[in-house]
Amino acid sequence: MAAIHISAAFDSGNIEVLDAAATDDIRLAIRKDNGSDFYQWFHFRVQGAREQALRLRLTNAGGASYPDGWDDYRAVASYDRRHWFRVPTRYQDGELVIEHTPGQDSLYYAYFAPYAFERHLDLIARAAQSGRVRVENLGATLDGRDLDMLRFGEPAPGRKTIWITARQHPGETMAEWCAEGLIDRLLDCHDAQAGRILEQAVIYLVPNMNPDGSVRGHLRTNAIGVNLNREWNAPSLERSPEVFMVRARMEQTGVDLYLDLHGDEGLPCNFIAGQEGLPWVEDDLLSQERQFELDLQAVNADFQLERGYPIGKHVTEEAITLASNWVGKEFGCPAMTLEMPFKDNDLRPDAEQGWSPERSARLGTSLLDPILAWLGRL
Amino acid sequence: MAAIHISAAFDSGNIEVLDAAATDDIRLAIRKDNGSDFYQWFHFRVQGAREQALRLRLTNAGGASYPDGWDDYRAVASYDRRHWFRVPTRYQDGELVIEHTPGQDSLYYAYFAPYAFERHLDLIARAAQSGRVRVENLGATLDGRDLDMLRFGEPAPGRKTIWITARQHPGETMAEWCAEGLIDRLLDCHDAQAGRILEQAVIYLVPNMNPDGSVRGHLRTNAIGVNLNREWNAPSLERSPEVFMVRARMEQTGVDLYLDLHGDEGLPCNFIAGQEGLPWVEDDLLSQERQFELDLQAVNADFQLERGYPIGKHVTEEAITLASNWVGKEFGCPAMTLEMPFKDNDLRPDAEQGWSPERSARLGTSLLDPILAWLGRL
Amino acid sequence: MAAIHISAAFDSGNIEVLDAAATDDIRLAIRKDNGSDFYQWFHFRVQGAREQALRLRLTNAGGASYPDGWDDYRAVASYDRRHWFRVPTRYQDGELVIEHTPGQDSLYYAYFAPYAFERHLDLIARAAQSGRVRVENLGATLDGRDLDMLRFGEPAPGRKTIWITARQHPGETMAEWCAEGLIDRLLDCHDAQAGRILEQAVIYLVPNMNPDGSVRGHLRTNAIGVNLNREWNAPSLERSPEVFMVRARMEQTGVDLYLDLHGDEGLPCNFIAGQEGLPWVEDDLLSQERQFELDLQAVNADFQLERGYPIGKHVTEEAITLASNWVGKEFGCPAMTLEMPFKDNDLRPDAEQGWSPERSARLGTSLLDPILAWLGRL
Amino acid sequence: MAAIHISAAFDSGNIEVLDAAATDDIRLAIRKDNGSDFYQWFHFRVQGAREQALRLRLTNAGGASYPDGWDDYRAVASYDRRHWFRVPTRYQDGELVIEHTPGQDSLYYAYFAPYAFERHLDLIARAAQSGRVRVENLGATLDGRDLDMLRFGEPAPGRKTIWITARQHPGETMAEWCAEGLIDRLLDCHDAQAGRILEQAVIYLVPNMNPDGSVRGHLRTNAIGVNLNREWNAPSLERSPEVFMVRARMEQTGVDLYLDLHGDEGLPCNFIAGQEGLPWVEDDLLSQERQFELDLQAVNADFQLERGYPIGKHVTEEAITLASNWVGKEFGCPAMTLEMPFKDNDLRPDAEQGWSPERSARLGTSLLDPILAWLGRL
Repeated sequence: MAAIHISAAFDSGNIEVLDAAATDDIRLAIRKDNGSDFYQWFHFRVQGAREQALRLRLTNAGGASYPDGWDDYRAVASYDRRHWFRVPTRYQDGELVIEHTPGQDSLYYAYFAPYAFERHLDLIARAAQSGRVRVENLGATLDGRDLDMLRFGEPAPGRKTIWITARQHPGETMAEWCAEGLIDRLLDCHDAQAGRILEQAVIYLVPNMNPDGSVRGHLRTNAIGVNLNREWNAPSLERSPEVFMVRARMEQTGVDLYLDLHGDEGLPCNFIAGQEGLPWVEDDLLSQERQFELDLQAVNADFQLERGYPIGKHVTEEAITLASNWVGKEFGCPAMTLEMPFKDNDLRPDAEQGWSPERSARLGTSLLDPILAWLGRL
Repeated sequence: MAAIHISAAFDSGNIEVLDAAATDDIRLAIRKDNGSDFYQWFHFRVQGAREQALRLRLTNAGGASYPDGWDDYRAVASYDRRHWFRVPTRYQDGELVIEHTPGQDSLYYAYFAPYAFERHLDLIARAAQSGRVRVENLGATLDGRDLDMLRFGEPAPGRKTIWITARQHPGETMAEWCAEGLIDRLLDCHDAQAGRILEQAVIYLVPNMNPDGSVRGHLRTNAIGVNLNREWNAPSLERSPEVFMVRARMEQTGVDLYLDLHGDEGLPCNFIAGQEGLPWVEDDLLSQERQFELDLQAVNADFQLERGYPIGKHVTEEAITLASNWVGKEFGCPAMTLEMPFKDNDLRPDAEQGWSPERSARLGTSLLDPILAWLGRL
Repeated sequence: MAAIHISAAFDSGNIEVLDAAATDDIRLAIRKDNGSDFYQWFHFRVQGAREQALRLRLTNAGGASYPDGWDDYRAVASYDRRHWFRVPTRYQDGELVIEHTPGQDSLYYAYFAPYAFERHLDLIARAAQSGRVRVENLGATLDGRDLDMLRFGEPAPGRKTIWITARQHPGETMAEWCAEGLIDRLLDCHDAQAGRILEQAVIYLVPNMNPDGSVRGHLRTNAIGVNLNREWNAPSLERSPEVFMVRARMEQTGVDLYLDLHGDEGLPCNFIAGQEGLPWVEDDLLSQERQFELDLQAVNADFQLERGYPIGKHVTEEAITLASNWVGKEFGCPAMTLEMPFKDNDLRPDAEQGWSPERSARLGTSLLDPILAWLGRL
Repeated sequence: MAAIHISAAFDSGNIEVLDAAATDDIRLAIRKDNGSDFYQWFHFRVQGAREQALRLRLTNAGGASYPDGWDDYRAVASYDRRHWFRVPTRYQDGELVIEHTPGQDSLYYAYFAPYAFERHLDLIARAAQSGRVRVENLGATLDGRDLDMLRFGEPAPGRKTIWITARQHPGETMAEWCAEGLIDRLLDCHDAQAGRILEQAVIYLVPNMNPDGSVRGHLRTNAIGVNLNREWNAPSLERSPEVFMVRARMEQTGVDLYLDLHGDEGLPCNFIAGQEGLPWVEDDLLSQERQFELDLQAVNADFQLERGYPIGKHVTEEAITLASNWVGKEFGCPAMTLEMPFKDNDLRPDAEQGWSPERSARLGTSLLDPILAWLGRL
């Protein structure tokens, strides 16, 4: 019988094999982000285990960045790299244990459905074929990758400026799946809402704020271990060029509405964290944000308003380092972080897939409605 | 040089060739619906006219059922039978004149993008592959065709009963394009609104109420010239089995909400005709209908509320023969007719396609949102 | 429980329901071709039989045109109208008995996978988008349908003229599936053989010689019951316009090689019937035909040479009325009839699908190789 | 105006920017393969040059591994990363000069259409869904990537063992495009030749022998600069694990027929280099190889036999280090190297695409015919 072989040498791969001798007791460890202590993202391939009952132990799960993320969590797996399904998983004694019997010779396990840099480049290229889109290079990351921005629509007097960023934290791949859904709708020339929006606004969209961390299989940081979503108050080309370049471009365009797309390890639901609780925020903005949430909920039953981060989660000094807070303060505009779950969405559980790339994309699709409603109220 | 050849011997074909000898003066006539005087739908194929400047005169256009439908109207054409584009058309001296130089050997002209019975059967078959769907045969039309009904969701205590019918008037193909969009969304297991709806309601959907008229290339009537949307008060198996059978099934299930999908020859916009002005209607129902329209407009900028039929368009005796009026009165529920244009939608004109199958489908997609909102308010 | 409903009012539908009261004893009859005694093609839809064990008796099978076609034959069925699979079938006491328990509400049974006229028109339209193709209307059938011809390549001095016709017998749908495969390869600009052929030859192709019979659900004849493949010696616009028009066009172009695509009810294999045994044929032509068969077998293991029609099957007077014989004699060229099975191909049996549309298309694809080899030997 | 931005930080990227200040005089250099002096592969992205006339000078082209590869060569470009077209290119004064005016904001230039590792993993995953396929991991490369092998068919007594390898030289991407075409045909359950082959043989196929070099943007070597196709006589896990592992697996299975897929920088045609001229080869094998070539030519007019490498190109000591020679000698079997051009195929030039991924795939598809013919003659 062929030995089990476990590998992670591919886009966003992350695993260390401690011991794979016995299929019913495979010990693995998640690698830390380069230059940091963050870790929780994993993505690896198993070969040679067809019809063998695997027990995969991620032995250092207890020390991961968000250990409460493991409660009620199930890992995802795929044979064909398109369809990702959940597999039996439990968190026990500080370890994440996956028990699964593969039906094929080769399969992949991951923290969430991966979104490869090749798919990212294909997405940019596909969008670029539309007459509605300009592609802009904002500069290079520390590993030398392009930081791609899409601009939808033409700037014109009276048009609002909307910015959307995704995947500052590279392990939160649902953020780019969500961006893809949103992009596809913006590209649809038969969609009335998309058409109306581009009559009234220009959208600047960065579908992947952190390509280096994405390719490297990081959870939370860029090539050198910097958490980009704590850099917005004082980014630098040395530590956080991704933020530096986006911020510089924002300062050129101004910002009237900002959305930052994320995944949350802990909560089993979709929610928005706005600027509530921040000392500088005026009531009118809060009410705009609140209405945005209501409008989103109205068109997508996967979204909810009851749960979210506690108000004032971040103390002021830290708060200003986060993208949505910094943008909100700097430009005096609604600025919101949309969080999607790694776990299943408990509002509408899906035993097979849990929260998924497909549903992330549908949520992205839905974002156009509250955006248009917001424009209509101005 | 090969002679021009014009034909209509295919699904929904309708034309009579009076004289096709000279390419710059081709005289045609629209055939009446069998057994009636209605006519306006045309659909024909032209061969052998590549790079020749055609002038096609529909000489009896002035006597068509809705002559004001020709004002600002442009015919559609297609080379590949998938993409339909508008061609230069004018209404003059009682004739509809199409002037167009085909770029290929073979192409089709029509009043609106056709929707063939084969496509209908494919749609039913595709929907039937879903675990959410049951297919039901309601009986046979006068020409012996099946009257297909799709049921989405499982009846259960407390679940509402929603009925949707389309294409009572067979020439209003946008009604079935619209139904297809709606069906595709109901089939999407990743769509939160569809999932929520089927937790609270069962949808009975007849995507084509009039397959005989559709295949025969009729504008408005069934195989023997009966206008189905004037039969609801007293349908018969002899004259209007399509209505008879649907009505009978409705009486078994009851109806809590009803939508009937149509096209309107005259108005260049999408609108809903509800029960306003009918003597039996209570204010609460009118307000539900009004809210439905507002909710639809909120998610689809191609819909509007300003224009529509004048209140009391149909006198009471006739009113009760229309599907939405009869259903509304019989079941005491919101019952609305959605009308889409044959012309372009002047709210968001599209020089190339005008109002199109693609946009009809998007409008169908959008119908789920006001339905869910309506359920939420109960 | 809903009653069983059986219908055939759609493209190529053919069945008469004698008694459908008991699901385990449904009695049906195949309708004769209009104006003739031929019958064997059936195609019908069954609704309301989900999870019910059906026994369908085609009671007049014994009198069908080719009763030996029922030996070792299994009917095909489809839920989605794309994938056709075989179902348990036996021929017994002069009846064809299908025993099958549908897994869905609605499904179709047929003699072989149908090929609808709408698909035909789509095929023509798709081919027409290629710069290699001209579409030509040869005239109108008795029911007024267009007789479509595709021309691949440009006539030029030294280029050979190849004619291919399919589906003179409308129930032999595999002939059009085969033509579709051949057309798709001719359209492939990356295929070297297709490119080489069109440097040396022009191909005139009629994918459906008998659209009227096809739509009417006939086995073997046109709208008025005429067997087109017995009309080639003296076709007339009154009885056999399809042959009349093709023959007239052939006389304009000349013919250097001719293929006529058919299905055979009896033999469970693919074979070619050439001109062997005909008094007028010279040895060189027979040897060209023989080499063509060998070349086809070399590239497609579904084809064989051992079995076929007995030499001299048709007496001389009748022989000349068949397309391939008439063309071979008239133009002194290789002229062959390719026959595909309704049954499974016993050389490579497929328990699930038997001989299928997919394999018919692959065989059509393969025809380009012997054509190119033939051109290369001239 | 935005500055030009040129990048290569993606799968198989290779370029060094010397000076990109002036769009009409951009100076670039191709990087050498890591640990070696080989270089010729390039692949880079240009942004910000829409509608600007670019002159791109690859200044070190004269020192590339195969300078005669630049004669009559044109670089490829793509906007959408799917369709690759040729752009005006000349070789002059030791530089390769590309002159092109991009029509979009972002595009890619390359030596030949790239084939990314993500696409490779997708190909393996797609193939694995077939019941005909087993996926086998042969071990890890020096960079830790999986060396994937596909096995088609089941070993059984009397069945022949066929090995096919591709892309030992990673810049020869046409080799993997070719393998993909071959794989797709082997997966086609309706293809008679594929079915017949798997009744008589098992195929072991390594679609990418050199994933490290592929991802790194190498021309000819693995992660540490070793030319794998000079390692077959004495591979080692330290220098050439890819060869070591494949050779070891071959020794387990034996080999009856071997094909190695490559690209050739110099010749503008497809050809096979067999064992002719090698001292150990017997006439029977040479005649089998010769027949294989004839059979391939018969089914694909893009293949030819007139041109190829001179006999005895490699002296004996080196000869045995090449895959096909080593396999041929070791197993006493036909063993051939198939070479495809980087330039256009001058037998059937294509002004737009030149030799392309699509035609490489068709050539791969065609390989099944000579394989089956070879099996048939045994």
